[in-house]
Amino acid sequence: MNKNVSAVYAGSFDPVTLGHENIIKRAAEMFGMLHVAIGINSTKKPLLDLETRVKLLSELTKGFENVRVMTFSGLLVDFCSKENVTVSVRGLRAVSDYEYEMAIAHVNADQEPHVETVFLPTLPHLSFVSSSIVKELARLGGDVTRYVSPSVLDALKRALLDKT
Amino acid sequence: MNKNVSAVYAGSFDPVTLGHENIIKRAAEMFGMLHVAIGINSTKKPLLDLETRVKLLSELTKGFENVRVMTFSGLLVDFCSKENVTVSVRGLRAVSDYEYEMAIAHVNADQEPHVETVFLPTLPHLSFVSSSIVKELARLGGDVTRYVSPSVLDALKRALLDKT
Amino acid sequence: MNKNVSAVYAGSFDPVTLGHENIIKRAAEMFGMLHVAIGINSTKKPLLDLETRVKLLSELTKGFENVRVMTFSGLLVDFCSKENVTVSVRGLRAVSDYEYEMAIAHVNADQEPHVETVFLPTLPHLSFVSSSIVKELARLGGDVTRYVSPSVLDALKRALLDKT
Amino acid sequence: MNKNVSAVYAGSFDPVTLGHENIIKRAAEMFGMLHVAIGINSTKKPLLDLETRVKLLSELTKGFENVRVMTFSGLLVDFCSKENVTVSVRGLRAVSDYEYEMAIAHVNADQEPHVETVFLPTLPHLSFVSSSIVKELARLGGDVTRYVSPSVLDALKRALLDKT
Amino acid sequence: MNKNVSAVYAGSFDPVTLGHENIIKRAAEMFGMLHVAIGINSTKKPLLDLETRVKLLSELTKGFENVRVMTFSGLLVDFCSKENVTVSVRGLRAVSDYEYEMAIAHVNADQEPHVETVFLPTLPHLSFVSSSIVKELARLGGDVTRYVSPSVLDALKRALLDKT
Amino acid sequence: MNKNVSAVYAGSFDPVTLGHENIIKRAAEMFGMLHVAIGINSTKKPLLDLETRVKLLSELTKGFENVRVMTFSGLLVDFCSKENVTVSVRGLRAVSDYEYEMAIAHVNADQEPHVETVFLPTLPHLSFVSSSIVKELARLGGDVTRYVSPSVLDALKRALLDKT
Repeated sequence: MNKNVSAVYAGSFDPVTLGHENIIKRAAEMFGMLHVAIGINSTKKPLLDLETRVKLLSELTKGFENVRVMTFSGLLVDFCSKENVTVSVRGLRAVSDYEYEMAIAHVNADQEPHVETVFLPTLPHLSFVSSSIVKELARLGGDVTRYVSPSVLDALKRALLDKT
Repeated sequence: MNKNVSAVYAGSFDPVTLGHENIIKRAAEMFGMLHVAIGINSTKKPLLDLETRVKLLSELTKGFENVRVMTFSGLLVDFCSKENVTVSVRGLRAVSDYEYEMAIAHVNADQEPHVETVFLPTLPHLSFVSSSIVKELARLGGDVTRYVSPSVLDALKRALLDKT
Repeated sequence: MNKNVSAVYAGSFDPVTLGHENIIKRAAEMFGMLHVAIGINSTKKPLLDLETRVKLLSELTKGFENVRVMTFSGLLVDFCSKENVTVSVRGLRAVSDYEYEMAIAHVNADQEPHVETVFLPTLPHLSFVSSSIVKELARLGGDVTRYVSPSVLDALKRALLDKT
Repeated sequence: MNKNVSAVYAGSFDPVTLGHENIIKRAAEMFGMLHVAIGINSTKKPLLDLETRVKLLSELTKGFENVRVMTFSGLLVDFCSKENVTVSVRGLRAVSDYEYEMAIAHVNADQEPHVETVFLPTLPHLSFVSSSIVKELARLGGDVTRYVSPSVLDALKRALLDKT
Repeated sequence: MNKNVSAVYAGSFDPVTLGHENIIKRAAEMFGMLHVAIGINSTKKPLLDLETRVKLLSELTKGFENVRVMTFSGLLVDFCSKENVTVSVRGLRAVSDYEYEMAIAHVNADQEPHVETVFLPTLPHLSFVSSSIVKELARLGGDVTRYVSPSVLDALKRALLDKT
Repeated sequence: MNKNVSAVYAGSFDPVTLGHENIIKRAAEMFGMLHVAIGINSTKKPLLDLETRVKLLSELTKGFENVRVMTFSGLLVDFCSKENVTVSVRGLRAVSDYEYEMAIAHVNADQEPHVETVFLPTLPHLSFVSSSIVKELARLGGDVTRYVSPSVLDALKRALLDKT
């Protein structure tokens, strides 16, 4: 009756927010192995380069024995097949989120029926926080300390300085 | 690193639909133990009596070694504490569902932080099927064979005859 | 290539609002025959009795040669089969409307694939008007002249007097 | 250029939640006078009687010089006309809330164009809290201390005891 | 009482999906004439060129006597006036769809009151399929055979090869 | 007990629509001072240049003694601190609007707790009108006279001519 389910939590993590970190923590307690998989999307230009995002996520998750930070390109379901992952974890915030996420979940289920999507509700006080809002806020000089960890804040500041 | 997470899938199951059965199957593959918990709500008058619902669910899930059918009254989180359940599984259909379910998930998390809610997307071709619609349809003489198992159909017919 | 499609616009019409009347007018121009079908629901107690609703709708639609006012009980799709109706017309207002209406449309399509549901967008300035709001407003002494025709207003007033 | 706008915050307040209290505090800072108006609805049976609700709200708002607790029956816009109120304040939580509230706002604007509706966003960590959820939770023995003030908690307990 | 209503189903069809094909089939049965109108949008770069989209749609709809494939630029309502079209057919999928589509319907009604918009509900098992998702999936090597006809699949493959 | 609350209504106003003008009028009646603040966003290319937008808004609001047209860059909450503004006014249209606006409201409240966001419901017959739709419609030769004031229409025509 023991379960050894491997799960994946995929995203751009540009940057990882406290909302993401909370989902990682809760999913790590729920599944035997959790892959945090940073998607490489050739058509979008990230603010933080891939190396920085891998480094930040690795540091932030080093307390979890069953969490591995990885990168992937192509389809998430192909990553799952290769890594024997059967569960894709997604955080749910607003209603607009929900519809997009449901569409992706159904498409993935069509592609690879062995991969199940599970949604975790975002904490209410972080339900409005997204990577885009954090970047926009940081770019305009706003205070994002409630939304990201200190190491992420430093990385954001450096990245924004580099762009000036 | 092995996980032995116990989960619960709670509801009225008045009646259990093919949508419910599908969620049970997928959740049973994901967690070490799945309690299917029929909530006893003294303020609502069900169409199928509790005994019938327990019997139907027990038969329909007898192929799953790690599924147990139970009843509970009171708060779901109290049931979880007593049974060492740490995950509440919910099926997600429409947007209106989603908001109510998110509210319940947040309330439960406030009551008992050790209980996590996870949402599974309902299969698209069952996304519009609910126990209420099945009952209403059966009451008006409609065909519900696409939405419930044969044993449930029989029970519905008997219950509707009894009411006449 | 000529089409002689028969459509139905079903509802409780308790009371018929200007929003309903507008949908009737537009649907009557679009289809060869439009049945305005008043559903008889034994579990709900209407404010206006069936006879009054038939009379009001008959008068309000007497200018349309291809509109027939009827009553029905049971499933709408059974009505459609009997009357050779292949299109069910629905007005769409808010998002919450939309999800319920989509569910009903899918259920009906499962019951009777020959019946198609089409949705017409409610006029923006009537998008918030429903029979329930009209009744509640009238009951509290509010002014509903913008939402119903004069004959409906009279019937509402009489029905509310009768209840006192 | 000075403004002396009188506003109303209406509801059943059965019971008043911390979400309600927060809206009262913010609205009181924004308008010259804030009427907290308890609607008397003859068709709903409240858990807390009217006298208790008036007493609780009066105590909870006694620190605000420009807040008055009142009761009203009938249409809110009639209350506004009588009390020279030109703004109706509403808290906004979920999307489903939003559509209903927009409908009521438009109806009120049709009835009485001098009454404007303004919406205040509920605090994120209280966005899922409603009077109904608080009552249901209390009834089942759950802990509602995060959602209501101590005096409200006492009143709820007494009212639930009385019903047993 | 016979109706000879001409309708239009407009879109980019980049590519046409099985969802689109299903709407075409149902609309063709409902109206006397159905124009499938490919909008030429100078600001978006399609994956499939216009000629290919015209050819695919013409082949896929050649079984319908009352369907004509056309192209148009500018406003849809101007196309309708020129072609004596009085109904614009739209497929409805998610809630986000719905709001955008309602806005366009209202704008079109303001521009040309003789053009009516009707919405058809997308089949549940295709409700999450859009041209964008098909393109993205095909680009990443996913399997889109459930979402498009074989001829469309071939065209997609050729177009993606050309881009490499 | 008198209130002298300063409010801001911020946006791109590219162009200002009748929906915007209506919100300005209603907010000006509600607050002691209303700043109409045109946000300067270096990453978006507007159709109307900043000078034109300032001029149009100044003319359209010259009848209101307590309205000031201004420009700002950076965070709205910083503008509010500098100008002693404590209320940010937002118009609410569709559900999709609502979620984005709620997120921004929560972020702003985190940044600067002294700034309160209030939402005003857009008039139903303008609920589907946005600056983007007006621009798109004007670009394609549609009639936007129902959505903007005459002076705005002239400015749009000049700007579109300049782009050809």
